[in-house]
Amino acid sequence: MDAYLKVQREKLERFVSLVFQRLGIAAPDAATAAKVLVMADLRGVDSHGVIRLSWDKSYVKAIRDGIINPEPKIRIVNETPSSALIEGDGGIGMVVGHRAAELAIEKARQAGAGIVAARNSRHFGMSAYYAMLALPHDMIGISMTNAGRQVVPTFGREERYGTNPICLAAPTHEEPPFVLDMATTTAAAGKLEVAARVGNPIPLGWALDESLEPTTDPRAAQRARKLLPLGSTREGGSHKGYGLAIMVEILSGVLSGTVACLTPPEIGVRGHFFAAIDISRFRPVEEFKLDLDNLLRDLKSTAPEKGQSRVYVAGEIEHETAQERSAKGIPLPPITLGYLRELSQRLQIPYDLEPAAGA
Amino acid sequence: MDAYLKVQREKLERFVSLVFQRLGIAAPDAATAAKVLVMADLRGVDSHGVIRLSWDKSYVKAIRDGIINPEPKIRIVNETPSSALIEGDGGIGMVVGHRAAELAIEKARQAGAGIVAARNSRHFGMSAYYAMLALPHDMIGISMTNAGRQVVPTFGREERYGTNPICLAAPTHEEPPFVLDMATTTAAAGKLEVAARVGNPIPLGWALDESLEPTTDPRAAQRARKLLPLGSTREGGSHKGYGLAIMVEILSGVLSGTVACLTPPEIGVRGHFFAAIDISRFRPVEEFKLDLDNLLRDLKSTAPEKGQSRVYVAGEIEHETAQERSAKGIPLPPITLGYLRELSQRLQIPYDLEPAAGA
Repeated sequence: MDAYLKVQREKLERFVSLVFQRLGIAAPDAATAAKVLVMADLRGVDSHGVIRLSWDKSYVKAIRDGIINPEPKIRIVNETPSSALIEGDGGIGMVVGHRAAELAIEKARQAGAGIVAARNSRHFGMSAYYAMLALPHDMIGISMTNAGRQVVPTFGREERYGTNPICLAAPTHEEPPFVLDMATTTAAAGKLEVAARVGNPIPLGWALDESLEPTTDPRAAQRARKLLPLGSTREGGSHKGYGLAIMVEILSGVLSGTVACLTPPEIGVRGHFFAAIDISRFRPVEEFKLDLDNLLRDLKSTAPEKGQSRVYVAGEIEHETAQERSAKGIPLPPITLGYLRELSQRLQIPYDLEPAAGA
Repeated sequence: MDAYLKVQREKLERFVSLVFQRLGIAAPDAATAAKVLVMADLRGVDSHGVIRLSWDKSYVKAIRDGIINPEPKIRIVNETPSSALIEGDGGIGMVVGHRAAELAIEKARQAGAGIVAARNSRHFGMSAYYAMLALPHDMIGISMTNAGRQVVPTFGREERYGTNPICLAAPTHEEPPFVLDMATTTAAAGKLEVAARVGNPIPLGWALDESLEPTTDPRAAQRARKLLPLGSTREGGSHKGYGLAIMVEILSGVLSGTVACLTPPEIGVRGHFFAAIDISRFRPVEEFKLDLDNLLRDLKSTAPEKGQSRVYVAGEIEHETAQERSAKGIPLPPITLGYLRELSQRLQIPYDLEPAAGA
């Protein structure tokens, strides 16, 4: 990856923001959507970053096709001092999600805890973005979303639900914040894409192929779209990964009224779930942070297994990656640069991400 | 199990309640603790049921040793319209947990959502009990607890945290309620005990032995007390099971101020986390229930893999077991009956669980 061109975060955000603006999204919303995408790249979650920004796929295609509403009327349908249901009006998930997560924080500030469900949204990118919004407020943030059918329940052989991620962020004193952001499958769909691109096999237990057998071929797995739940097999505990995913579908989809896995996939309708917990209403924030520091340090001090140098905690590697990429720029593979170059041409955006040819 | 003596739920609850009363717990609290334990047996979660009620182990020993306070002054330390921190005063977890979960429901009724953390509690038995309290109120219930060190983080070779279960219950219209209740390890500690007692090997990936290698010997695994996170290995996704467990420790332990895995194990101090979400504040309850019915039915209709008859959803098997055992009684193995007989003698409780000898 060292050979990849490195682009400054701010420059990339500006470019991506212009892409969304040219597609009809108002400037502030476009900036939010860009921030979410680029933050994924910054944290090394490249599968959820600007690689998803190509002319004929994902967000851009969905906006062009009218499947994502660039000017949604996002509104609160129901609310109490500590809860709300938000109507996303088909808006891009990053904008709906940001609005809903901020509202959960506002509710938590006023009532101690805030829970917000969002309906009729779309793919919202990296979950961690929304949960991490709570951190500067000294709150615990939680975010979840449902997703389209591509996971096979335990004992089953057909895909029935989505990769339904769970994310929780909690603030620390000196340690990097704890940020768990995990698909409830053994491996996220993006991992198949990475393996396929690099030409690596995938471990058995990640996915089935089209003949409904476990496979090590990432391309075959991508064609079949049959991922396995965390745990992989019944004796490996796959009923737990499966159960967690349905928990996420209940909180994101059934509570909001947008059950993604029962909705025609063409539209990509999504429901989300956000929670914020104001730590100060439970105990002094500094005590919480010191305890969490101690917990994380204790985990990191675990004697490692042979061949491993140390034990990590959730969010630690992403935090280090973000620091490095903030300083040195975000490495973008040629395929992503190609997407962005095409977008600059089609949408008439000045392309300043690479040195001019011949320069 | 058909050969086992079957005992009526009510009779067993009465007996267990008397055990707790004789140990100094007030009658209403004793009844609550008995209800939680017997509900585990009723649902087939035998590992968390009355098998834990022996003179020189677990709850009874801890009360006798003064480690569980039979007459705790449980009180609210901090509260807002939607949150509370509860001091458990060393009370038995079932009593502290019941009180805290009920308070979360009360908060949710008033404010839309309720989040309650409990500190300085003890082992609370089966998580599902607390989450399921929300069901008759047409709420979603969530319960979590931390536990003592017996799980090894990804890349590590020392136990550092507990089996930290996650439970969510959600109400349905015609289907059995969705009840996910899972340890964040590949297999709960109770599964080792069951395998050891029956003499079955355990799958590789459940636990390490004392030489720090994965083992199939349940006794060796029990001696080592080194369970593996859900996912078993890094490539199997164990960093996710590990991350979920720390999420639970943060919500149950760091938020409450009782981080079990950093506390001396002798006392068995526990922190819990409970949440209740009032569905009606988001959307009409009937719509929620019908959508959840549809979701669960869709999952159950998944074509099964070869050798399996069908796909299940979380809580379904426990629901069926509870119905059967409500009607026909709870089968108790000889070892459990032996424990209860001893308790009846030591605590001078009339023993009416088995036919009189010679009768």
